[in-house]
Amino acid sequence: MTPATPLPTLLVLDADPPPRLGRLTGKARIVHTDADGLAERLPAADALLVWDFTSHAVRAAWPGTGPRPRWVHTASAGVDHLMCPELAASDTVVTNARGIFDEPIAEYVTALVLAAAKDLPRTLDLQRERTWRHRETRRVAGTRAVVVGSGPIGRAIVRMLKAVGVTTALVGRAARSGVHGPEDLDRLMARADWVIAAAPLTDDTHGMFDTRRFGVMQPSAWFVNVGRGQLVVEEDLAEALRRRWIAGAALDVFAREPLGEDSPLWGVPGLIVSPHMSGDTVGWRDELAVQFVDLYEGWAAGRPLANVVDKKRGYVPGH
Amino acid sequence: MTPATPLPTLLVLDADPPPRLGRLTGKARIVHTDADGLAERLPAADALLVWDFTSHAVRAAWPGTGPRPRWVHTASAGVDHLMCPELAASDTVVTNARGIFDEPIAEYVTALVLAAAKDLPRTLDLQRERTWRHRETRRVAGTRAVVVGSGPIGRAIVRMLKAVGVTTALVGRAARSGVHGPEDLDRLMARADWVIAAAPLTDDTHGMFDTRRFGVMQPSAWFVNVGRGQLVVEEDLAEALRRRWIAGAALDVFAREPLGEDSPLWGVPGLIVSPHMSGDTVGWRDELAVQFVDLYEGWAAGRPLANVVDKKRGYVPGH
Repeated sequence: MTPATPLPTLLVLDADPPPRLGRLTGKARIVHTDADGLAERLPAADALLVWDFTSHAVRAAWPGTGPRPRWVHTASAGVDHLMCPELAASDTVVTNARGIFDEPIAEYVTALVLAAAKDLPRTLDLQRERTWRHRETRRVAGTRAVVVGSGPIGRAIVRMLKAVGVTTALVGRAARSGVHGPEDLDRLMARADWVIAAAPLTDDTHGMFDTRRFGVMQPSAWFVNVGRGQLVVEEDLAEALRRRWIAGAALDVFAREPLGEDSPLWGVPGLIVSPHMSGDTVGWRDELAVQFVDLYEGWAAGRPLANVVDKKRGYVPGH
Repeated sequence: MTPATPLPTLLVLDADPPPRLGRLTGKARIVHTDADGLAERLPAADALLVWDFTSHAVRAAWPGTGPRPRWVHTASAGVDHLMCPELAASDTVVTNARGIFDEPIAEYVTALVLAAAKDLPRTLDLQRERTWRHRETRRVAGTRAVVVGSGPIGRAIVRMLKAVGVTTALVGRAARSGVHGPEDLDRLMARADWVIAAAPLTDDTHGMFDTRRFGVMQPSAWFVNVGRGQLVVEEDLAEALRRRWIAGAALDVFAREPLGEDSPLWGVPGLIVSPHMSGDTVGWRDELAVQFVDLYEGWAAGRPLANVVDKKRGYVPGH
């Protein structure tokens, strides 16, 4: 008989408890907390699961010194909601939900591109008015998209848009094989029919889509954001739409979520507003939980973690 | 010098004159007519271009006996609007616009499937109410479609749905390699997520989508018609939607077009109504005209015509 080793303490920041953690019975001592209890419980935790990925509580509660979790996992692709200088400087490992959202978001973006090309929002408006008005719509094949964000989500978007005949260009933090650097972005946006924002929120990407950038786009072009709200200067986008600099836009993410009832964005002409749902397909919570449990089992057994975030860059470095 | 041969008389049934017929200068004597003048002018015409493909005038005006055009071309995929027993029994050759609409309609259907999977109509409704309501949506990949109509339009729909990850089955008039016969339709519909009607209107297909057929579909499934309105018993579809036998439907074609302001179809819950536009992308009239001019030049030179409709079946027989 080996002497009993104490179970690691897994702290779970949640609003609704995650499913499927039963698999961790006998492998973890699980403690649930809300944002208010987080600071008090962090020092005693070995690992932290940020299940409520809408919360910014980790950033506020992270201990500057002293004991802290050795591992933080967030059930999201982005890590901007939890990263702070103290966490970035620490030896705590941060992992994310890389992979879960790629294909769902690619489908969502492709749905928006096709719906825009086929003028579907206008069809629904005309139906409400009981008006039969034939229009010519656009071919999707042969149009051009620029996808900003060269991680797995951006690459999945490129694959699916290509599958429906769109010519694509991918823009990342730096030029490399198959990826344009930021220096090409203006030129690519100027001839794109679809500009898709799927980048992580970092110092480099904050506010990158602004009046100047909307100004280079074609009047027939659409802008779609499925990355993070703060990639976009929202008032600049609203103004570009009001002035018809661009034909339309769809935002699934916003600088402040949920969007308040009084937000002017709900009523901007040509803007489709959706509630941060592009990656959330039926079963997604189960997939996130299973992904975490798999990571946990490896971690508890002393194996190296996958999906490790480069805390300085704010994302998992790719190929 | 060869003796001058009289130019063939090309009668054009139109509302707006077709573009690009200038290429026929010196090759045809072109006479334009509306529906009222058709019967009078038909006997003197060598060829008839049915440019106004919404008109049923040919069926009414076709001469039972005596001189008549040797060739009728319709600027549409369907020929149901012009076919009559006298035309079917005559030696007049009928051709259609096979090929022009395939890819546009495939894009349109794919747009509807993706929009339905991603709950886009509901997103637009909630936006009008300024309501932030997160929902889980469906993955498109792995869903199942049955496409009814195995001509070039149906096959283009299958190709594009496959490209976005949908598992497809094609149903035609008779079973052959890669195509199911009508005997498989109920079974395929019962497990389909998307039922797409893209068949020509014939005696066999008239009213084929009725209460019984909607009754075999899954409650989560959608029905889409881009073929002809009379494939569908419209009141049966409306009732199936009201009873929530199926989740949604989209009709681009109707038994009577344009749909009157007083049609109950505008307001059926879960039904998207569009004005017969699925194939009509920017430049389509030019493409239709160029296709006709190409056919005309070959015909005038005595070469065999392409796109020849089997007048008994009501479409161009495929492979």
